Amino acid sequence: MSSLPVRQDLSGLSDRFSAVRALSLALAEPLSDADATVQSMPDASPAKWHLAHTTWFFETFVLRDHVPGYRLHDERWPFLFNSYYEAEGRRHARHRRGMVTRPTLDEVRAYRGHVDAALSDALPTLPAAVQALVELGCHHEQQHQELLVTDILHLFSENPLEPALWPAAPRRPVAVPSAPGWIERPGGLVQIGHDGGDFAFDCEGPRHQALLHPHAIADRTVTNAEWAAFIADGGYDDARLWLSDGWAWVKREGIAAPMYWERQGDGWTRFGLDGRQPVDASAPVTHVSFFEADAYAAWAGARLPTEAEWEAAAAGHDPVGGNQMDTAGPVAPQAGTGPRWFGDVWEWTGSAFRPYPGFRAAEGAVGEYNGKFMNGQFVLRGGSCATPRGHGRASYRNFFYPHQRWQFTGVRLAKDL
Amino acid sequence: MSSLPVRQDLSGLSDRFSAVRALSLALAEPLSDADATVQSMPDASPAKWHLAHTTWFFETFVLRDHVPGYRLHDERWPFLFNSYYEAEGRRHARHRRGMVTRPTLDEVRAYRGHVDAALSDALPTLPAAVQALVELGCHHEQQHQELLVTDILHLFSENPLEPALWPAAPRRPVAVPSAPGWIERPGGLVQIGHDGGDFAFDCEGPRHQALLHPHAIADRTVTNAEWAAFIADGGYDDARLWLSDGWAWVKREGIAAPMYWERQGDGWTRFGLDGRQPVDASAPVTHVSFFEADAYAAWAGARLPTEAEWEAAAAGHDPVGGNQMDTAGPVAPQAGTGPRWFGDVWEWTGSAFRPYPGFRAAEGAVGEYNGKFMNGQFVLRGGSCATPRGHGRASYRNFFYPHQRWQFTGVRLAKDL
Amino acid sequence: MSSLPVRQDLSGLSDRFSAVRALSLALAEPLSDADATVQSMPDASPAKWHLAHTTWFFETFVLRDHVPGYRLHDERWPFLFNSYYEAEGRRHARHRRGMVTRPTLDEVRAYRGHVDAALSDALPTLPAAVQALVELGCHHEQQHQELLVTDILHLFSENPLEPALWPAAPRRPVAVPSAPGWIERPGGLVQIGHDGGDFAFDCEGPRHQALLHPHAIADRTVTNAEWAAFIADGGYDDARLWLSDGWAWVKREGIAAPMYWERQGDGWTRFGLDGRQPVDASAPVTHVSFFEADAYAAWAGARLPTEAEWEAAAAGHDPVGGNQMDTAGPVAPQAGTGPRWFGDVWEWTGSAFRPYPGFRAAEGAVGEYNGKFMNGQFVLRGGSCATPRGHGRASYRNFFYPHQRWQFTGVRLAKDL
Amino acid sequence: MSSLPVRQDLSGLSDRFSAVRALSLALAEPLSDADATVQSMPDASPAKWHLAHTTWFFETFVLRDHVPGYRLHDERWPFLFNSYYEAEGRRHARHRRGMVTRPTLDEVRAYRGHVDAALSDALPTLPAAVQALVELGCHHEQQHQELLVTDILHLFSENPLEPALWPAAPRRPVAVPSAPGWIERPGGLVQIGHDGGDFAFDCEGPRHQALLHPHAIADRTVTNAEWAAFIADGGYDDARLWLSDGWAWVKREGIAAPMYWERQGDGWTRFGLDGRQPVDASAPVTHVSFFEADAYAAWAGARLPTEAEWEAAAAGHDPVGGNQMDTAGPVAPQAGTGPRWFGDVWEWTGSAFRPYPGFRAAEGAVGEYNGKFMNGQFVLRGGSCATPRGHGRASYRNFFYPHQRWQFTGVRLAKDL
Repeated sequence: MSSLPVRQDLSGLSDRFSAVRALSLALAEPLSDADATVQSMPDASPAKWHLAHTTWFFETFVLRDHVPGYRLHDERWPFLFNSYYEAEGRRHARHRRGMVTRPTLDEVRAYRGHVDAALSDALPTLPAAVQALVELGCHHEQQHQELLVTDILHLFSENPLEPALWPAAPRRPVAVPSAPGWIERPGGLVQIGHDGGDFAFDCEGPRHQALLHPHAIADRTVTNAEWAAFIADGGYDDARLWLSDGWAWVKREGIAAPMYWERQGDGWTRFGLDGRQPVDASAPVTHVSFFEADAYAAWAGARLPTEAEWEAAAAGHDPVGGNQMDTAGPVAPQAGTGPRWFGDVWEWTGSAFRPYPGFRAAEGAVGEYNGKFMNGQFVLRGGSCATPRGHGRASYRNFFYPHQRWQFTGVRLAKDL
Repeated sequence: MSSLPVRQDLSGLSDRFSAVRALSLALAEPLSDADATVQSMPDASPAKWHLAHTTWFFETFVLRDHVPGYRLHDERWPFLFNSYYEAEGRRHARHRRGMVTRPTLDEVRAYRGHVDAALSDALPTLPAAVQALVELGCHHEQQHQELLVTDILHLFSENPLEPALWPAAPRRPVAVPSAPGWIERPGGLVQIGHDGGDFAFDCEGPRHQALLHPHAIADRTVTNAEWAAFIADGGYDDARLWLSDGWAWVKREGIAAPMYWERQGDGWTRFGLDGRQPVDASAPVTHVSFFEADAYAAWAGARLPTEAEWEAAAAGHDPVGGNQMDTAGPVAPQAGTGPRWFGDVWEWTGSAFRPYPGFRAAEGAVGEYNGKFMNGQFVLRGGSCATPRGHGRASYRNFFYPHQRWQFTGVRLAKDL
Repeated sequence: MSSLPVRQDLSGLSDRFSAVRALSLALAEPLSDADATVQSMPDASPAKWHLAHTTWFFETFVLRDHVPGYRLHDERWPFLFNSYYEAEGRRHARHRRGMVTRPTLDEVRAYRGHVDAALSDALPTLPAAVQALVELGCHHEQQHQELLVTDILHLFSENPLEPALWPAAPRRPVAVPSAPGWIERPGGLVQIGHDGGDFAFDCEGPRHQALLHPHAIADRTVTNAEWAAFIADGGYDDARLWLSDGWAWVKREGIAAPMYWERQGDGWTRFGLDGRQPVDASAPVTHVSFFEADAYAAWAGARLPTEAEWEAAAAGHDPVGGNQMDTAGPVAPQAGTGPRWFGDVWEWTGSAFRPYPGFRAAEGAVGEYNGKFMNGQFVLRGGSCATPRGHGRASYRNFFYPHQRWQFTGVRLAKDL
Repeated sequence: MSSLPVRQDLSGLSDRFSAVRALSLALAEPLSDADATVQSMPDASPAKWHLAHTTWFFETFVLRDHVPGYRLHDERWPFLFNSYYEAEGRRHARHRRGMVTRPTLDEVRAYRGHVDAALSDALPTLPAAVQALVELGCHHEQQHQELLVTDILHLFSENPLEPALWPAAPRRPVAVPSAPGWIERPGGLVQIGHDGGDFAFDCEGPRHQALLHPHAIADRTVTNAEWAAFIADGGYDDARLWLSDGWAWVKREGIAAPMYWERQGDGWTRFGLDGRQPVDASAPVTHVSFFEADAYAAWAGARLPTEAEWEAAAAGHDPVGGNQMDTAGPVAPQAGTGPRWFGDVWEWTGSAFRPYPGFRAAEGAVGEYNGKFMNGQFVLRGGSCATPRGHGRASYRNFFYPHQRWQFTGVRLAKDL
């Protein structure tokens, strides 16, 4: 990765850098050394690894490559904390990240301090193209903040004691919402994708025309109460609602409810960062896979929106509004009112994650950012309660495999007109 | 499956039925009882199963459902020969199909005779909506004819003796083709999908507008000589060319050449229905996965076409021309000249197999035809040397997972303009 | 394998050779080409493979090595039909034996004819040490006859139609036996193992002193009625009765009855070579694993006998009596009366299969006969209804892994005094 | 577990209890919370789990069952820290022990303090039969001390940084020993097993007669220099030396040297609790599996001793001598001189781990102690450098599966006379 084209406003970068780096530490604050070290499944990474890998990103692509005289904090650590950049050489196997009990969490914090100091010193004098790498590093770290939160949630769910990371927030009584409204659109050409005005990830562009067909899209996401009705109606037992691979997954894994749900007496509970709590009927359902989202839509006589439909509908809305993550604390989807496009839950679309017309990967290691993941995954839009506020935008393309559900993922319906 | 909408010309159906049924028997003619029974991998089915399953389709959806007084040939066989129709009840596990040594191949032939006689008797008096099911059954059987051929090829490749099913055809000397020409298109709206005039599978419709972006598409598919150059240039060893899942597949499976290729001395051989033979430098490469096709395109500075680009380009060409399967014999891609869009090899596109705008699955068991396979797979276009001539058309959407390569699959390049 | 020490009486060898070879063909007589080709699990081999492998044994170790001028029937076949003799070079992977649809069953029969003719011609003039290899080959083939029968049983059990290989024999009404009697022995030194007077496998010797401790051994094996009582008493649900590995196996595989048993209404049925039939309450239980045998013994307040206890008790009994296999037909354990030590079911002992004091593997390929299997398996004694009569003797040591149960395996109890 | 027969001298129990409990804490002293929490493989357990499980043993079988008024430290913890006692109810899955980041290491230390105080208070007034359970608990904890050490070694070996737990001890120059001497014995009856005079585990008895056959047994274990010669001679490449299951293991796992060995330049290094160090040519080889030990013996023209041969030979030697663990520190096998029977490395015998004549499991949960592991494992004798001094004795039977090698396991040869 040599440098990036400068397309965005870099003023305030130093403050953004400091704020992003501080939030990571705040998220890790209640973690013990052990909490931060264990890897609960191959899809997840230890919190310590997230803290170190994001630091390695700045150290490697900014300090090592562009700050003369910088010396690596520890020459053996790049092997440990490179994630998947083939161009950066060999690296520790992803599924063995939990074996690294040393360096300790405190040593990783010291690593962060070392790199932060060096980068803060250098930042004012860096050329704009390198400052753009710092900007990329901040957005990269925000992605890992969301993963850190969801990975810790998964780890704690594997502990039979089901510890809470944070105390529960007070519950606000909210009426269960009535049926969703439908926003109709007659079809036609729209522009989607990022226009390059400020920061975006490579896969969000180029901005291009897309053709919509007549459709309606719901003005809110599916609630827990609606999902409970799907369960009660035998949704998990009716093969006709499911994709073939989805049905095989349901049978193989014994899936019968969203992840972290457990029946207790007549009702449902869910595990969250505040421990096990009753399911909030009026809140958006979360921790459902694409397979479940697609089956739910079939049951509801609808379908999932395409990412172009979603982006066109969300275009006028404020991407920094809604229930997104501001500080370290017990994030969770919440019941609310009115149309909302950002926050609460990532919304599965029916679009496979594939390159936009004219997409080309960047040169060098940065070229590995998103392009090489473009098969087998589906696009999600909108951001969640665990997405750092300011990270998302209408053109943002998140993506996961259709069986994955440890992120805060939910469902918005659409239908053909 | 009650019936289908009648949209196509059913004249000549009786002849088509007879011809299709006869070709299946001809393909199985050189097979022993054992050849026809063994299942070489979970993706493949025994030839005997193909012969019986296609017969079960007619027996179930036409004779049982629409011919009063028809009695099942054997009441225990539907359990054996249902493929995946959940609505038709429980069925034998797919990966255990090779355990069914009884009924024998001859008993399955008798089953075919029984059903053929009953169906030929009934056909003239069936209402058009049921005749449409017979038409569907014929196209369904043609799909299984291609699978029968490729499944036998796989089975024989697993035999250390590498037997030939048919003697090799005489080789025609053909010059290695020069670089492909590029067909350019400025972009804009086109119509794709099937218009319902005659038979098509459910997933080919509805016909709809699609938006093309400016691009060029090659006038022929990639040759074996070109693929050998990719290998010689280290294409299988360069992670940067590969999708992440593709690279993991290459490493895990030790992939270093198309399926059935083996190095012998300085050159390459391939295994085929005529045994092991030298690779024909001028013929289209085949038995490559989507992962390989995508990596090759990256190496060539190009990309795979979208299915809309392919269909728009192929629209004016004759779908019954080219190297397709006419009779039982040693089918193989062949060297030729000029642009060709049908036959030789199925062409991987860069399009994930997803529903067209407005697609709805049909009611009943037939609704399971294609819709439930719409995740994780990529669309292939054009038909192969093992596709029964007359089966394909420009709107035809074949689909496989990105690692699969036991079909006659190949590559056509495209690029952005 | 160069030759063997001559310790046995070789008179009548020619007749034994002919009889053994004929029985294999008779066992395969009702099999189709497909029946004889399919491999139903990695532990089992196709019947065709048994027929060919036993022939390869004679061809390789007798004809190729000791008959000048002999030419291999087919030079490519040793690769296919070597089982596990590392000294004989590379060979086809065991779990892929079912891929070999060609050569056909008829071609394998022709192979047998070719080798039989050559061997019969040569036999009279072979030196005694080579005739001893022929004798070994006959006993080796008898082992494979039993496997052929049990492997076909397993294959047919995997066919949902559950075909019968042979018609059921008429059932003789037999009273359910009363409690077994106990044969007591005060302990002391005994001689066990083979004394070398006639044929025995390498692992049966050397004959040596063994020390018995005071014990009692049952005068018959456990019946189906007794086993049904074990099931009814919750034997498969009580962890305390089971070895730890056995309990894990029960849970992982969902084991709740002997192999091939199925509950029908109030009773039990079992699948056999004569199809599915009611369980015969008075017959010896069979198709139970060591884990099950050991748990049953714990439930019964007893233990399994050691192999030395068994051999000492069986020493005076006739090894060619009892229910053993004389001809091709529906072999099955049968109800009987009085003490019986040979036939019906192989009896699990509590002895791990390990070398006797002074055991040394023979030189060359024959040295691989039994010695290399001496870990993780338990010894079985006595022979079964599928053991060719004349094959067994008191010193015979059969062995299988503790979870395996597709052989005709049963249980005799013992206890400490 | 109600109580145990009192067969041993319980004087000094209080001191032994204190010393054992203190050593566990000392071993864990250099561990971080993360070091103590991570599980590196299913066979291994976290150090924290060892510390808690041994405490649970005292809490459950002594305090809960026999001390009126005792209240559990935490009612939810028995689920976490029961190892395998089925009679004690459900428990956390063994392979998920590493998920328990909470309770922390400090909380587990507090648990130990709580139980130690209660038990020390109660000990003087406990009846002898309950004191015997305390004695059992001390020996049980010593077993876990050895596992704690070897499990941490394995964990650290999985860290690419290869941290050292303790600094290396100074190396004493020792001459490479000459060929071993052989101790000959003519055979005959001997007494083996524990006589019940003081503490022993259930599987060590009853004491009984065993019959030895004439043999010789080496007066020392195999050295690293001898093992390097085995490697250099192609020992890992010669199938004829290996048990069939062992050869499959070598091929599947790519085994080519003892665990933790790595070639560096011309020589070998090994990883240990003091980090990576050169292999000491004169020290006993360790971290070899039974499969390797058996192959080595075949290569050396010898065999492994039986456990009776070993016990008879070791009978006169001092079980508290030799290189055993006295304190927390970098334990490792050491070069020495003369015959040694205890310490350095556990010695694989050729004896399968099976019950002695007359063995009966105790009533209640304690009955699960050893008896349920009596299949598929081999007996090891003698104790290692990581065995707490005073834990072992001549009748001690350790046991592991033939592929396991993360313990300090080595080889002593024997041969028939």
